[in-house]
Amino acid sequence: MEKAKLIPIESLGEPRFDSPLREKRQRFYNNEGIALYNRIKDIAAYDSVEDMEFLELAGARDQIYFDPQKTVIGIVTCGGLCPGLNDVIRAITFCALEEYGVKKVLGFQYGFEGLVPRYYCQPLELDTENTDEIHEKGGTILKSSRGFQEPSEIVDTLQHFKVNILCTIGGDGTLRGARDIHDEIRKRNLDIAVVGIPKTVDNDISILDRSFGYQTAVEAAWEVVNAAHGEARAYRHGVGLVKLMGRHSGWIATSTALSNSNVNFCLIPEVPFDLHGPNGFLAHLEQRLEHKDHAVVVVAEGAGQHLFDEEHAGRDKSGNLQFHDIGTFLRDRITKHFKAREFEINMKYFDPGYIIRSRPASAVDSEYCLRLGYNAMHAGMAGKTNLLVGMHHCRIVHFPIPMIGQRKTVDPDGWIWQSVLQATHQPPDMLNQPLSK
Amino acid sequence: MEKAKLIPIESLGEPRFDSPLREKRQRFYNNEGIALYNRIKDIAAYDSVEDMEFLELAGARDQIYFDPQKTVIGIVTCGGLCPGLNDVIRAITFCALEEYGVKKVLGFQYGFEGLVPRYYCQPLELDTENTDEIHEKGGTILKSSRGFQEPSEIVDTLQHFKVNILCTIGGDGTLRGARDIHDEIRKRNLDIAVVGIPKTVDNDISILDRSFGYQTAVEAAWEVVNAAHGEARAYRHGVGLVKLMGRHSGWIATSTALSNSNVNFCLIPEVPFDLHGPNGFLAHLEQRLEHKDHAVVVVAEGAGQHLFDEEHAGRDKSGNLQFHDIGTFLRDRITKHFKAREFEINMKYFDPGYIIRSRPASAVDSEYCLRLGYNAMHAGMAGKTNLLVGMHHCRIVHFPIPMIGQRKTVDPDGWIWQSVLQATHQPPDMLNQPLSK
Amino acid sequence: MEKAKLIPIESLGEPRFDSPLREKRQRFYNNEGIALYNRIKDIAAYDSVEDMEFLELAGARDQIYFDPQKTVIGIVTCGGLCPGLNDVIRAITFCALEEYGVKKVLGFQYGFEGLVPRYYCQPLELDTENTDEIHEKGGTILKSSRGFQEPSEIVDTLQHFKVNILCTIGGDGTLRGARDIHDEIRKRNLDIAVVGIPKTVDNDISILDRSFGYQTAVEAAWEVVNAAHGEARAYRHGVGLVKLMGRHSGWIATSTALSNSNVNFCLIPEVPFDLHGPNGFLAHLEQRLEHKDHAVVVVAEGAGQHLFDEEHAGRDKSGNLQFHDIGTFLRDRITKHFKAREFEINMKYFDPGYIIRSRPASAVDSEYCLRLGYNAMHAGMAGKTNLLVGMHHCRIVHFPIPMIGQRKTVDPDGWIWQSVLQATHQPPDMLNQPLSK
Amino acid sequence: MEKAKLIPIESLGEPRFDSPLREKRQRFYNNEGIALYNRIKDIAAYDSVEDMEFLELAGARDQIYFDPQKTVIGIVTCGGLCPGLNDVIRAITFCALEEYGVKKVLGFQYGFEGLVPRYYCQPLELDTENTDEIHEKGGTILKSSRGFQEPSEIVDTLQHFKVNILCTIGGDGTLRGARDIHDEIRKRNLDIAVVGIPKTVDNDISILDRSFGYQTAVEAAWEVVNAAHGEARAYRHGVGLVKLMGRHSGWIATSTALSNSNVNFCLIPEVPFDLHGPNGFLAHLEQRLEHKDHAVVVVAEGAGQHLFDEEHAGRDKSGNLQFHDIGTFLRDRITKHFKAREFEINMKYFDPGYIIRSRPASAVDSEYCLRLGYNAMHAGMAGKTNLLVGMHHCRIVHFPIPMIGQRKTVDPDGWIWQSVLQATHQPPDMLNQPLSK
Repeated sequence: MEKAKLIPIESLGEPRFDSPLREKRQRFYNNEGIALYNRIKDIAAYDSVEDMEFLELAGARDQIYFDPQKTVIGIVTCGGLCPGLNDVIRAITFCALEEYGVKKVLGFQYGFEGLVPRYYCQPLELDTENTDEIHEKGGTILKSSRGFQEPSEIVDTLQHFKVNILCTIGGDGTLRGARDIHDEIRKRNLDIAVVGIPKTVDNDISILDRSFGYQTAVEAAWEVVNAAHGEARAYRHGVGLVKLMGRHSGWIATSTALSNSNVNFCLIPEVPFDLHGPNGFLAHLEQRLEHKDHAVVVVAEGAGQHLFDEEHAGRDKSGNLQFHDIGTFLRDRITKHFKAREFEINMKYFDPGYIIRSRPASAVDSEYCLRLGYNAMHAGMAGKTNLLVGMHHCRIVHFPIPMIGQRKTVDPDGWIWQSVLQATHQPPDMLNQPLSK
Repeated sequence: MEKAKLIPIESLGEPRFDSPLREKRQRFYNNEGIALYNRIKDIAAYDSVEDMEFLELAGARDQIYFDPQKTVIGIVTCGGLCPGLNDVIRAITFCALEEYGVKKVLGFQYGFEGLVPRYYCQPLELDTENTDEIHEKGGTILKSSRGFQEPSEIVDTLQHFKVNILCTIGGDGTLRGARDIHDEIRKRNLDIAVVGIPKTVDNDISILDRSFGYQTAVEAAWEVVNAAHGEARAYRHGVGLVKLMGRHSGWIATSTALSNSNVNFCLIPEVPFDLHGPNGFLAHLEQRLEHKDHAVVVVAEGAGQHLFDEEHAGRDKSGNLQFHDIGTFLRDRITKHFKAREFEINMKYFDPGYIIRSRPASAVDSEYCLRLGYNAMHAGMAGKTNLLVGMHHCRIVHFPIPMIGQRKTVDPDGWIWQSVLQATHQPPDMLNQPLSK
Repeated sequence: MEKAKLIPIESLGEPRFDSPLREKRQRFYNNEGIALYNRIKDIAAYDSVEDMEFLELAGARDQIYFDPQKTVIGIVTCGGLCPGLNDVIRAITFCALEEYGVKKVLGFQYGFEGLVPRYYCQPLELDTENTDEIHEKGGTILKSSRGFQEPSEIVDTLQHFKVNILCTIGGDGTLRGARDIHDEIRKRNLDIAVVGIPKTVDNDISILDRSFGYQTAVEAAWEVVNAAHGEARAYRHGVGLVKLMGRHSGWIATSTALSNSNVNFCLIPEVPFDLHGPNGFLAHLEQRLEHKDHAVVVVAEGAGQHLFDEEHAGRDKSGNLQFHDIGTFLRDRITKHFKAREFEINMKYFDPGYIIRSRPASAVDSEYCLRLGYNAMHAGMAGKTNLLVGMHHCRIVHFPIPMIGQRKTVDPDGWIWQSVLQATHQPPDMLNQPLSK
Repeated sequence: MEKAKLIPIESLGEPRFDSPLREKRQRFYNNEGIALYNRIKDIAAYDSVEDMEFLELAGARDQIYFDPQKTVIGIVTCGGLCPGLNDVIRAITFCALEEYGVKKVLGFQYGFEGLVPRYYCQPLELDTENTDEIHEKGGTILKSSRGFQEPSEIVDTLQHFKVNILCTIGGDGTLRGARDIHDEIRKRNLDIAVVGIPKTVDNDISILDRSFGYQTAVEAAWEVVNAAHGEARAYRHGVGLVKLMGRHSGWIATSTALSNSNVNFCLIPEVPFDLHGPNGFLAHLEQRLEHKDHAVVVVAEGAGQHLFDEEHAGRDKSGNLQFHDIGTFLRDRITKHFKAREFEINMKYFDPGYIIRSRPASAVDSEYCLRLGYNAMHAGMAGKTNLLVGMHHCRIVHFPIPMIGQRKTVDPDGWIWQSVLQATHQPPDMLNQPLSK
């Protein structure tokens, strides 16, 4: 397709070596494969052909940029836990050592801190023995931390350890960091590729079908909702309140509500609600308790931030906005509200975030992580840099890091949220004044 | 996009009624939404714009064909069990009764047998009470059977019960049946819509991203492989042989091998292999046992059918080819081979098919089934007929039933199978003579 | 054994009817079966034969006191949730209706509130249909509440509904209540038997081998400890703090520490500890973090109550002491301590109580509950009253309700706690001053 | 208790060393602790005091026989897999190295084969690193085999490796082997203790409350029955037939039937049944299918052996009787029977044995295995030999190996089997001629 507008991926230079995978009769994807880039929410995306953009497919190239025998790989995991981190670490390590036969794979520890000398962290040398079974457990064997470090110090470290390809596994902040590292590398004109694997258990990356770990999280959340339902149903006016992950977007809460029919209210950041007033959440909750005697409420951690008077509580070390704790806030307000009305309720509060995110990946997420790790390695070996690998419309593709910007949110007018309204029977809005759009 | 080649969906006629969903501020998808139809294996799909075809998006329409208050819905489940059947039944029932307020939902029992008077099966009247918790269990509350029945008898039954929309949930044979029912309906010029929800735990429908229940099956298969690994590793020359579902395509075996690193050989229908000879499977198995002392072998039920001399064993009542049992065949041949060589092995055979397919759906599959059921109902209420609903590149779309034809198979040259070769370390082929392509 | 000192069980009178179980060739246990009553901690129990006491075995009697066709059974569940409640309800119902053919089984709702008219709770009539699958879910279909009600009102209700046998399923408070109901019944000289099934997820009933639901709880706690371990290991100086159930005794925490080798500190009510000082918990935690970089701490909810200055927070409606929240207290104190020392830690707090106790019973607990329910029914039908059924040295036996008094605690000098010390490597004591015993 | 008849345990000699556990303030159990030995089925056990026998409690002794610093421990696992094997290996290793500080722990591989030179198996040296996480997986890291080896060769090996305490983990055959090893040791007058940990997933050891792994197996079997129920209910005249473990006694089948209410027929070795005839199993199955349309049948592998005409199929390498495969036999006979009667059924056969026994131990079994391993070590260090450790009436005690002889079977007249009859509604017998007792 000659006039296809291909979204360009930065490269360190022309491939210089035959891939060692040639001997294994691997089919190669030499940039000719493309996938339509489709911004999911825009259903008029195809209004004209000129609007179409295409992404290059990930996969092994038959010509590569780095000489495997001299290549050193670095891996770092940053930010909060997410099911599948160990799967990705393992996949990169296996692809690097078994497929390409690289010289060395170094695991930097404690996130970006491990890339800065003053934390005194010797990187781990990873091999197929010491990573063989790591994916059977949650967490990350490389450990993690929040916050970024000085790019120049990081690049010093990469040079010190002669790293050729740095794989960063992390969220927004990490990927911004990866871009800054890339910029510093370019400034120094070094032959180091930076490949990002986006990580967000919240599933809020616009360009991806889904982020790894997300499905595992929904499975885990589903079980917690069952517990909340059991507690709520067993007591007079029982309320099971479950806080789930989802700072900027309510995907986990939404999928949980769709998959578990016991959810009666689903509160997400994308859909503001009032607490008080005739059409507020508390009035609807009261109505439900009167008629059905129990209620299960699922709230994403980023929901209802407008209910807090005060300023935002600042930012954490990774630069992420810190959120007010809507879970305990709701728990306390609900309790207070009904107490004031002498309406006895039985409140049970669930905050399972750590239990969910520290799980090992489900089989389906494991397979996804395997694909991500292998393709990150293929991209790096081909000399591609400043890019991400991820799944877009069922294919693993390459994105320039800066494209990650936009978050994927739940569209309050879209079919998914409409389905939540149908499944929960919650009112379409819980505001006393209509939103001015 | 004016010149978009939209794949047309048959319709009973122009919409005649306002949708009752209008009051709930539902966004409507009045056929204007489209999705690129992309045959997955063809990476040159975009060679020219004229090649592109588009599919209409599923979703509620604001004008509908049937008058809800007079509409009767029929549901039937056919063929083998699959995780999620009850989810789909429930979703159709809830959408029909709660969203549209239809007159009645009838569940025909025992597959197509329930649509034929001589089996004496009274259909069940489904409501939101008696289907509320059915998705928490595997199986199908409507029961099932194999085989088709006479279309004219079925349409007689539909007329007798005044059914307006028939939802058939089943595999290939069922969908061929649905098409025949549709043809008979058209011949009689009746106002009955036929909507299919494709069901195949094997995930072998070409036009779908994935079929419902498939991910649940992979999770279950993953656990069985762990058991096989435990057994194989615990004995001298231990062999854990696991037969998995997959008659025409090896998706479950493939995904299991990718997600569970304990698999050493993965045998699928798409990749023929020799048993004997210097490059045959048995030689490679022996080598593995000599070096590693144990082996885990996963075999899809349709693999290795070329190894049987005899004619195929006929067809079952649904018209599906009957397969020779490659599982017990391999078990016996492996045992015999090593016995003849006085090479002591410990063979442990696993045939977990029924355990896998009778599971309740995972949360992720539950959500998918919810979407399928609701959208099947939306399509039927809009008067669309002779169509399927399914997910294509992350969107739920409409397909004409006849499009289902082609099976999705694992491409032996594609990246997925290449990844399996990498993950298992099995040889790229186990044939003594190269295949003539 | 003629001189066996049998612990007597109160009875409404001599059996008057042949048991309907006679037709089913049931072996009967007509009080002749006995089990040694053995106070577990006292290993010198057998110092002389005269010390020995015996308990009568539970089981069906061939002569019974109540005429089945005229007998009405009442069931009530009280207090907190515990895995297996629905199993017990179902077992009583099935035994009553299917084995004895009683007239009616009534489930009083919301604990003792359902036995008092002013709460307007119509009892549910239970049958083998509506209880058939209830044990597949956690919680209690009869709902529950805390607190006791006036015995005279309760007995009025029993008379109103013509209840002959009341089965109370609950903890300490409930059993004290059952005894008071029994006293009121005796005062009025009524023919109503009161049979208790002791319920405590904490496993703290001295006379029982184990209480139902306890093993299920340990399985669930085990999983949470794995999550805490994953979080703790993934961050610099990671602390995974898990609060588990156990108000007066630390059995769940103890068994969890023995079954899950990731626990580094186990804090229980029976073993006091200092927070501060050279031999306090914080000093030992700091040492562990310095050497191993992470720590998993399990704390029973009744542990460390001596650390709170204030008076006890009163009693709940069931008369149970209310406890200070040692979980959040420790979380805050640990955080504060290390902050003051500029020692960066990563604290992850887990409070999974509701998730654990709302689970359905494991298979092993299900079987135990079946036995308890059936034997409660046998005891009641035989006219026995003011008694408990429970497992003592592997047999189901009868205890007089007043015997329940003493709690089973973890002996700090016994082998179980010694094993915890070995498994966790925590110091034998964390006190700055030796305890004066 | 002066006249207590204590069942004597053989000893290598008087203790000679202070236990290193003294420093850890361990309470010691210097043989003074006793437990009543109670043959479970005999409820008249207490007819006279003279009948009573007592067992010594397991536990650490303050004086020990072996000098820890010179002591070498050997461990061997034999026979079929059982959940918890790795837990026991780990517990012995940790107790030996961490508590006593022994010189070395050797894991002999592949069962008794590893104790005989001609198999060329170097024993593994076990430490707290390489056994730390083994219990998280099923199987046995020491691998296993069936069959015994020449005692004199084994004792040669023990002498060669200077083993002082041999811990054998295995079933009947293994324990007979352990006794023979012990006899050979005594003949040579060596200072080697032999300590057995009985292993049988079938739970058929008479003197034990329960064997390790048994509860885990019941949990797993419970899930399979649910699958069988799902399949059976989904088809006309659906039969779900599940073969479970249990060669000489039907405990797993029995507990599964009691814990899972979906079982309709439970067939065990202890209760013979006819296939044909008016009161045979097939007639009752047909009746059930006619009335309820589906049936779930659970059969222990040792059931119905009387139905096979031929001689028993010999013995396996461990000397165990080999059984005819009642599972496939029943599957085929049921199919044939109904085919002959032109009664269409849908047969689904489940043989989950390997899936069940290769599971990791549940938390409760893990705790039990920990206790067994520690106490085996304590007994060995104290110089006790030719003994078993196991739980008897809730305490860990010592038994002489020869006492293991009798199997624990399900008493057809006892309450447990009566409860099964009640739970399944199967007829009390399925014989055409009454059994002559």
